[in-house]
Amino acid sequence: MPAGRHFLQIPGPSNVPDRVLRAMDMPVMDHRGPAFAEVGQRALDGMKSIFKTEQRVVIYPSSGTGAWEAALANTMSPGDTVLMYETGHFATLWKGLAERLGINPIFIEGDWRGGADPAAIEARLREDAGHEIKAVCVVHNETSTGSVTDVAAVRKAIDAAGHPALLMVDTISGLASIDFRFDEWGVDVAVSGSQKGLMLPPGLSFNAVSDKATAVAKNSTMPKSYWAWEEMAGPNATGYFPYTPATNLLYGLNEAVALLHEEGLDNVFARHQRHAAATRAAVQHWGLEVLCANPACYSGVLTAVMVPEGHSADAFRSTALANYDISLGNGLSKVADKVFRIGHLGDFNDLMLCGTLAGVEMGLRDAGIPYQAGGVLAAMDLLGPEADAARAAAQ
Amino acid sequence: MPAGRHFLQIPGPSNVPDRVLRAMDMPVMDHRGPAFAEVGQRALDGMKSIFKTEQRVVIYPSSGTGAWEAALANTMSPGDTVLMYETGHFATLWKGLAERLGINPIFIEGDWRGGADPAAIEARLREDAGHEIKAVCVVHNETSTGSVTDVAAVRKAIDAAGHPALLMVDTISGLASIDFRFDEWGVDVAVSGSQKGLMLPPGLSFNAVSDKATAVAKNSTMPKSYWAWEEMAGPNATGYFPYTPATNLLYGLNEAVALLHEEGLDNVFARHQRHAAATRAAVQHWGLEVLCANPACYSGVLTAVMVPEGHSADAFRSTALANYDISLGNGLSKVADKVFRIGHLGDFNDLMLCGTLAGVEMGLRDAGIPYQAGGVLAAMDLLGPEADAARAAAQ
Amino acid sequence: MPAGRHFLQIPGPSNVPDRVLRAMDMPVMDHRGPAFAEVGQRALDGMKSIFKTEQRVVIYPSSGTGAWEAALANTMSPGDTVLMYETGHFATLWKGLAERLGINPIFIEGDWRGGADPAAIEARLREDAGHEIKAVCVVHNETSTGSVTDVAAVRKAIDAAGHPALLMVDTISGLASIDFRFDEWGVDVAVSGSQKGLMLPPGLSFNAVSDKATAVAKNSTMPKSYWAWEEMAGPNATGYFPYTPATNLLYGLNEAVALLHEEGLDNVFARHQRHAAATRAAVQHWGLEVLCANPACYSGVLTAVMVPEGHSADAFRSTALANYDISLGNGLSKVADKVFRIGHLGDFNDLMLCGTLAGVEMGLRDAGIPYQAGGVLAAMDLLGPEADAARAAAQ
Amino acid sequence: MPAGRHFLQIPGPSNVPDRVLRAMDMPVMDHRGPAFAEVGQRALDGMKSIFKTEQRVVIYPSSGTGAWEAALANTMSPGDTVLMYETGHFATLWKGLAERLGINPIFIEGDWRGGADPAAIEARLREDAGHEIKAVCVVHNETSTGSVTDVAAVRKAIDAAGHPALLMVDTISGLASIDFRFDEWGVDVAVSGSQKGLMLPPGLSFNAVSDKATAVAKNSTMPKSYWAWEEMAGPNATGYFPYTPATNLLYGLNEAVALLHEEGLDNVFARHQRHAAATRAAVQHWGLEVLCANPACYSGVLTAVMVPEGHSADAFRSTALANYDISLGNGLSKVADKVFRIGHLGDFNDLMLCGTLAGVEMGLRDAGIPYQAGGVLAAMDLLGPEADAARAAAQ
Repeated sequence: MPAGRHFLQIPGPSNVPDRVLRAMDMPVMDHRGPAFAEVGQRALDGMKSIFKTEQRVVIYPSSGTGAWEAALANTMSPGDTVLMYETGHFATLWKGLAERLGINPIFIEGDWRGGADPAAIEARLREDAGHEIKAVCVVHNETSTGSVTDVAAVRKAIDAAGHPALLMVDTISGLASIDFRFDEWGVDVAVSGSQKGLMLPPGLSFNAVSDKATAVAKNSTMPKSYWAWEEMAGPNATGYFPYTPATNLLYGLNEAVALLHEEGLDNVFARHQRHAAATRAAVQHWGLEVLCANPACYSGVLTAVMVPEGHSADAFRSTALANYDISLGNGLSKVADKVFRIGHLGDFNDLMLCGTLAGVEMGLRDAGIPYQAGGVLAAMDLLGPEADAARAAAQ
Repeated sequence: MPAGRHFLQIPGPSNVPDRVLRAMDMPVMDHRGPAFAEVGQRALDGMKSIFKTEQRVVIYPSSGTGAWEAALANTMSPGDTVLMYETGHFATLWKGLAERLGINPIFIEGDWRGGADPAAIEARLREDAGHEIKAVCVVHNETSTGSVTDVAAVRKAIDAAGHPALLMVDTISGLASIDFRFDEWGVDVAVSGSQKGLMLPPGLSFNAVSDKATAVAKNSTMPKSYWAWEEMAGPNATGYFPYTPATNLLYGLNEAVALLHEEGLDNVFARHQRHAAATRAAVQHWGLEVLCANPACYSGVLTAVMVPEGHSADAFRSTALANYDISLGNGLSKVADKVFRIGHLGDFNDLMLCGTLAGVEMGLRDAGIPYQAGGVLAAMDLLGPEADAARAAAQ
Repeated sequence: MPAGRHFLQIPGPSNVPDRVLRAMDMPVMDHRGPAFAEVGQRALDGMKSIFKTEQRVVIYPSSGTGAWEAALANTMSPGDTVLMYETGHFATLWKGLAERLGINPIFIEGDWRGGADPAAIEARLREDAGHEIKAVCVVHNETSTGSVTDVAAVRKAIDAAGHPALLMVDTISGLASIDFRFDEWGVDVAVSGSQKGLMLPPGLSFNAVSDKATAVAKNSTMPKSYWAWEEMAGPNATGYFPYTPATNLLYGLNEAVALLHEEGLDNVFARHQRHAAATRAAVQHWGLEVLCANPACYSGVLTAVMVPEGHSADAFRSTALANYDISLGNGLSKVADKVFRIGHLGDFNDLMLCGTLAGVEMGLRDAGIPYQAGGVLAAMDLLGPEADAARAAAQ
Repeated sequence: MPAGRHFLQIPGPSNVPDRVLRAMDMPVMDHRGPAFAEVGQRALDGMKSIFKTEQRVVIYPSSGTGAWEAALANTMSPGDTVLMYETGHFATLWKGLAERLGINPIFIEGDWRGGADPAAIEARLREDAGHEIKAVCVVHNETSTGSVTDVAAVRKAIDAAGHPALLMVDTISGLASIDFRFDEWGVDVAVSGSQKGLMLPPGLSFNAVSDKATAVAKNSTMPKSYWAWEEMAGPNATGYFPYTPATNLLYGLNEAVALLHEEGLDNVFARHQRHAAATRAAVQHWGLEVLCANPACYSGVLTAVMVPEGHSADAFRSTALANYDISLGNGLSKVADKVFRIGHLGDFNDLMLCGTLAGVEMGLRDAGIPYQAGGVLAAMDLLGPEADAARAAAQ
């Protein structure tokens, strides 16, 4: 047991605030009893406020992977076609999941260095005169690369193509860290999880569901039970669930949503952007490259950093963990051992960021990766009231 | 907020020990980092010791309902036939789930007053010369009625019929409260959940899987991803999971399993039997009837009690809750409003039982249900060292 | 580790509510920083509301014993005389403490079976024409015997005697369980602690101080520093303390005071009286004798029960602890091994009481102490809405 | 509520590890019951291992101030003379406390920039041919200045003077952060508290007591009760206390001592020295001055930093707190507003230090205090395996 607090700087699970952990550390209650209704209703309403929707939210006791499956299993039938976009590892995993459900994904290839390209989506939809494509699926914040897709632009692309496909968005790692507007952006199904911007332990996942998606779901023939939205609707109307919910995680969820609104969602988003900018300044100073090559797609949630040829990102991460008790995210699949990922999401602040960047900088030094010292100072230049004022003036 | 501790005496979720809640109240860790392996391995090994199996255990971040689905989705294909037995509400729910997955359940009717009848199962299997039946599914401890099925006898029935069907057992509310022996009893798939005898909050579910079931699963064509056993096998081998596990519930699971072994599983089982016997003595003294009509099937987990004709079990439960801050289980489906259920499972002891029975007795009084006072005393006669000695002598 | 929750039914420390424990389970803060002022001010104001005083409250990081010492050390000088009353063990301990401080206590003897007699106090004060007696010290709720002193009557006795002595009251185990009115009753110094009606762990103690006592304190020559009221006044005015306070216990205190006001102090007091009456009904039914012989002095906090000649109260307590995991209070000093004490204070409710009395009744049985079975039922007759209505009608 | 974790970098209370907070977050137990003996005995034995004594330890439910009073009240009588040394604010407070107890302190003046000078002490003792001086009192780690006194050298000075005075040492902020050896160094009374190196919330204080001090205490005529060592001896022998102990803080103490031994006391001390050296490197780089002017006296616990003439240390601290959620210690008394103090003690690690120093550096910038940027980097040069190796080679 090393002394002091571990720096958990993977891009999720993120650090859980004490208030949330303590809210979970309370006796389980009867999920069928009268007192539960308020807990359940608060959770469902709270998540609507986070998704920014007046439509519908479904809460599952499961990992985010489950909510991926739920999104597809409720709206699709075996043999259906969906259009997906290769923004990175998680987009690829979602595609694999679709295949395992007997769905036929068209996968637009990507280079893992930016978000989904709305123009490419529009072009592909225009080719689909017969409307074989039932849904367009994109990842809002690609956790494997730190690239953000412009969801509103994807909506516009679908509309521009005059295509009836549903818009499905994985915002597992985006929600509650960077702006997401389910209703305003015209999303049909959103997928999220508890362990990222929501600052909870893993174990809850979410779907937000448009009225259109609810209607489409009626025709799905996919075998399902646990994920079936229709079974949720009745009990949810009064704050209950069709099967035993993860009660203590719901306690935590209600506290986490309260925390987010106490800070203010816009302040939360601004904080994440500030920390991302400071992190990129450090990376640039070190002389390393950010994986996301398109500044318009930079993520407020995490920054994936490329290590120079001939160096191992994983050896670096091991060194940093061993020497400074900091967990960093690994490169996945195509970028395995080539990038490391710095999570700067959730319950996080300026000095935690400075400690994190110091850990990265010392880790680079100890692992023998060439770098220019002083990245931490470059980040510090972008923190504090003066930098805030400069940013405000620049807008 | 009423003063004092709520009496959560539904048949699950059960009371969570402080040590378990506090174990969960710790920072989330990196589920891909080197330190996690021990947490994951302990959880998987610990559950093997609870299921009493040397074969395989799968842990899901989900409710028990998910593990029901997993059991069927991994071994069956759409159109397959299974033999199920109507022991009560939960057996019926499982059957409905099977139907939603496109499985064809043969449902042996029951009167909800006992466990599954091995002879009836054997007879039905003997009729199935073509081996259309792919699995026999029974509920070990039927939570809606408080009746236990003799699982070993069901195994013998299958073998006597010379039938190759898998034996699948829901022991969601039985495991870790009453004896269960996966390997010795020849079970192929067992289903369980965290919030009963395991003394955890809801949010984890389990499958135990025989080698035979693993082999059968290879041929399943059911669309699935989240529940797929095969994706678990690789990561589980070193203590990891294919998607984000419910980390903090795993912390709690490891503490709960430690607690169970500290007390000793046989002592845990004996405690549950003692409390069940004392509860039935109280019920009998009150002049009420236990729903389970077959003493060989009495449950150590809960006791379902019938209220006299013309009285409402639900009104009684509301009265008890309002007056004495005690949650009791309701009658479900066929026995709605006709029975209430007293949970005496999990982290529980003699004086908690006495408080519980006092709450029931005063609730009967306040709700105007005819009863003979003194049930608590009848229960007390079966508690303590003298009663223990009498029991030991009687064996 | 036995299963289930321990029954901590000593007359303090009492059971701590989860909300209070969780409030304490938060990071320590800078007790000199700006955010602390609110914590400190809330604690000081909260305790005024509990003592029912507009005058002054002092909070010590110490056991209640420290607040005893503080009461005397601030107001007295070596050689001063005080009038004390032997209501039981704790009154005797306070007298011993006075002696160790060089104070000369006049001790009115008592039989430990009732509260202090105001008439005896008045008579003694009338003898003291020279006003040598500087203070009258009584114990509000004598924890060793379960007898309550009528504090308002003692005030009247002092006034009737025309005597200027201060009135000092130990309400360590009385406060927040039974009614106490510092200002209205004309108390000059009250002494209390955290671990009884305030439902906190031990570690905080309190003085309430009248303006008269503050004035008197200016002339005290007793060597002291830690306990000196005058050093508290300055920092307390803005919510701070002269030395490091027990920060996390203050968090808990603020939560406990909130809980008390949520329930309502009058409801808290009525609950304690109801549980005390039910306990005495059980004792009477068992055929045992309550130590307090004067019904006007019965305590709402605890009931001390005499065991028959030839039986050991301590052996009984050991049996109950071993067999039923219940802690009961022992007889102290003069009544050692002759009485046991049932605490029914703090965070407590009807079913916890029934469990407690069942534990006592089974303990009597197992320890071979003659008793009539059914005390639990006698107590149950005094619980519930019908009994409440009967009480209301009787008033 | 700002996001992320507050940086509590005052020189105590220090950050409390989760394991310690969670150990405290458990039900209170009967402090007179059989199970308590192990808790109490572990606490007393554990503190002996921390003080490095085979003699005696006394534990009080109080702040450290209480243990100061206890040290004097047990060994001295009103009118006695002690020799004290003005190392800083806390030495001065202890002197004030002595005066309030009627003790006559001889106070050797100091400049607050180093530890106590053994030669000056020896010289003063040699003047005291009549042995009027009953005790020499020094502060091991002066929390107000960050200067350490060489306790072993003070012992040698006393012996060299052939003087029988007791050696009393305040190691409130030194114990468990920097080396302290009660027996080996010949200390007679040591004073400590829970909220510094012991990583607990405030609320416990300690005396270690030599056999000589125990003998001397028999002759003390100081009025006292709460602090009286002699009342502790009997109950402590079997793990109990004469009055209600702060039970939950004792749970935490046992966990904290376990943590210290898991890390190893020598590793704990080395870690504090490493962080102190890195902090001084940052201060030097900034172009600021460390208050402690004698390198032999540098503290491993905290570093007091002087701000340039014409600048306000308190305004700087407010700025750092407002902008970066970091609490730093203020200058006290003589150095009020002239210094700020960085605590680097307790449950602390390299990246927390880097975050802390970044907060100081940005605070200097924001508050307009002249400094050279890059102090964080200077500190980073002294962290990590290479720096460790260099240090090892230099020894």
